[in-house]
Formats: sequence, structure tokens, C-alpha cells
Amino acid sequence: MRKDKISSAVIRRLPRYYRHLDGLYMAGEVRISSSALAADMGLTASQIRQDLSCFGGFGQQGYGYNVERLRHEIADILGMNRNYTAIILGAGHLGQALLENFPFQRYGFRLEAAFDVDPALVGSTLGGVRIYHLDEMADFLRASPADVGALAVPGNVAAQSARQLAKCGVKGIWNFTNVELPEQELDGVRVENIHFADSLLALSYFISEEPL
Amino acid sequence: MRKDKISSAVIRRLPRYYRHLDGLYMAGEVRISSSALAADMGLTASQIRQDLSCFGGFGQQGYGYNVERLRHEIADILGMNRNYTAIILGAGHLGQALLENFPFQRYGFRLEAAFDVDPALVGSTLGGVRIYHLDEMADFLRASPADVGALAVPGNVAAQSARQLAKCGVKGIWNFTNVELPEQELDGVRVENIHFADSLLALSYFISEEPL
Repeated sequence: MRKDKISSAVIRRLPRYYRHLDGLYMAGEVRISSSALAADMGLTASQIRQDLSCFGGFGQQGYGYNVERLRHEIADILGMNRNYTAIILGAGHLGQALLENFPFQRYGFRLEAAFDVDPALVGSTLGGVRIYHLDEMADFLRASPADVGALAVPGNVAAQSARQLAKCGVKGIWNFTNVELPEQELDGVRVENIHFADSLLALSYFISEEPL
Repeated sequence: MRKDKISSAVIRRLPRYYRHLDGLYMAGEVRISSSALAADMGLTASQIRQDLSCFGGFGQQGYGYNVERLRHEIADILGMNRNYTAIILGAGHLGQALLENFPFQRYGFRLEAAFDVDPALVGSTLGGVRIYHLDEMADFLRASPADVGALAVPGNVAAQSARQLAKCGVKGIWNFTNVELPEQELDGVRVENIHFADSLLALSYFISEEPL
């Protein structure tokens, strides 16, 4: 399968497919038709067939999709079976929310450590994960490289923190800072932004629409 | 301008346009060409011209876009000048991150209150906003309706909390819970999801790609 042919819109839908198929799998469902999956997800059946055809023919006319097989295949495509590791940079409110509430493991990641500069946090353990001083990060990651660094620091140190993560060899930065990171200075590290503001503004747009 | 003709992909790009134009405006820039804006945003010039043509002809051949005018127009389209109000339901780590760090005002929202059940939080003030007991929410919103409710409660109470918000008359729910809300039970309330998991899985996909 040639990944470079998959459009970014399809890639963005894959995690949703995974979540839905995982729910079906957990509920013991064995197969699902494209029309039923479409209804669940608010898409059209033809959209679903088209998306999933990018990954080979998992559907069979008159049978639909094998839930377990499709779930597994999508997990594979998403890299969920590669034992990725993650660390969190910044253990303020947001970092703590990730530490205590985000199920990294369910998505194939092992959360190894968090780093902060606040003496009240350094040395403590949250959600089973230890918080180290930022000064220890380079040594820690040299001994135990991480694939992804979640960036949950204040905006004014976001760019320099991203450069530090890149220098420490992470492959991806999960950026919660609402700051556009200087990707050209990050040595090919992938940046994935969670832009709270963009999401709120989209909601603002939708509630502003005149009734059709 | 007929909003119902704007595709969802364009709508999703509008907040990014706004952020970039706001940055240019703050930096004192008066005009920008579609190619310069494209380079800033990692899009193509023709994509930009096509997107912005949805909103009437702001660009002029050989001149580009008037930064202030386009910024203002996009803000209008996004509903940023409608004095929207918001409340936060759930003042745990994530709710506190929103209370203390998210600049609602910059995006046209006035954050009025937060609600929680934790006695240690109720009655306190964070980021200048008071935290009330959840039991006070219905009365509060009857006296002072809110347009948007940010949902930052534990997953196991997400659906019932969303129904409460809908009953209290919010127009939109900003959902941080990673739970798919029962939209059909929410009386036409718009739901905007921030799915941390989908974002992490997209990053997982990107770092898994073979080099081209």
C-alpha cells in the first residue's frame, strides 16, 4: 500500500474510523455494512467505500466490512502497533490533564515522563508518571529516546521548547500551545497542532449561521 | 453572502486565516499578496484566492489583500463581533487550563462562569472567573444565558452534562471529553469536538510514514 497517495482529508478521518470500529469491536460486532458505518459517523456510504478503498478491498459486496480486520488494519496504518513512546513538556494544568486523564496506552503510546521547571512539581508522580526537571530532559532522552513530545508549556517559551525537543531527537511534536512553531528550525520533526482557538472559532461560525 | 455555500474545509481554514491576518495586522502590515499569505500558511496562492473568493472579491490583481479589511471581514464571518458568552462545565485540570490560559476575549467571547461539584473549587475564582456549584447552573443560565458551554467534565458524565447544557439553552457545546455526544438528544445544539486522540493518531500516522 502506497501511503503517499492517501489524501490528508482521508488521514484525518482514519482516527474516527478507528474509534468507531473499536467501539463496535468492543461491543462484539463482527461485521458492519458501509451504510451502517456511514450512519454512525455522519458520512455517506459511498464516502466510506471510497476512503477505505485507499487501503485495499476490505469490503465485500453484500457482506460489508469485517470489524476486527478493518480495525486492526487501520490501527496498523496509524502506527498504533509500533510501541511509540511519548513525554510531556510542561506539567501545568494542561500537562496534568494529559498525565491524569489521557489514555496514551489505548492509542499505542507509552508515556515515559513529564518535565517542568516548577519545584513544587518536580519529583512528584502524576497518573503514574514521574515529573522531572527540564534540565534533566536531554540526558533522559539520550538514555531513553521518545518518539513524541507533547508541548504544554506557556506560549512565550513554546518555540524554544520545541527546538529543545527537536534537538533531543523526537520525531513528532504534539503542540498544545496555540503558537505556530518554527517548523523550518525543527529538523524535519512533524508538528501536530491542537488549536483550541480554531476549534472555538469554527463553533462560533456554526452558531452564527442563519437557519437554512 | 450565502454562508450555506461555503464548504466545511474552507470553514475550517477560516480561523487560520484570521490568526495569520491578525498577526500581520498587529505587526502593522497594510497589505499582503496571495502568494505571500500562501507561503506563510503552507498553502498555494491559488488555494487562497479560491477560498477567499467565497467571501467576495477582497483581492485586487497586482495589489493583493488589504490586511485590515480582510481580517475584519473574516472576524465577522466567524461571528467574532457578536458578543458571544461562554461558560465552562468542569473545573478540573483542563477546565482550569481554559480558565487561566485561554484568551476567550481575543476570539470574541466573554467567559462568564465555571461550574463544578468539587467543594474545594466551588466559590473560588480562577483567571478572574468565579466557579459555582453545578446545582446553580440552571438558575445562573436562566438569568444570564450563555451561547457556548465548554464541556470539560469526566467522560462518564459527559452525555448527561451535555443534555443539561442543551436544556439550559446554549447554542453550542465545545466538547473536550473525547466522548461522542448524543447530538440527536441535544435539541439542535451544535457540537464542536476537540478530539485529542484523533490528533495524536494523526501525528502517529505522520511519523510512521516512510521517507518519500
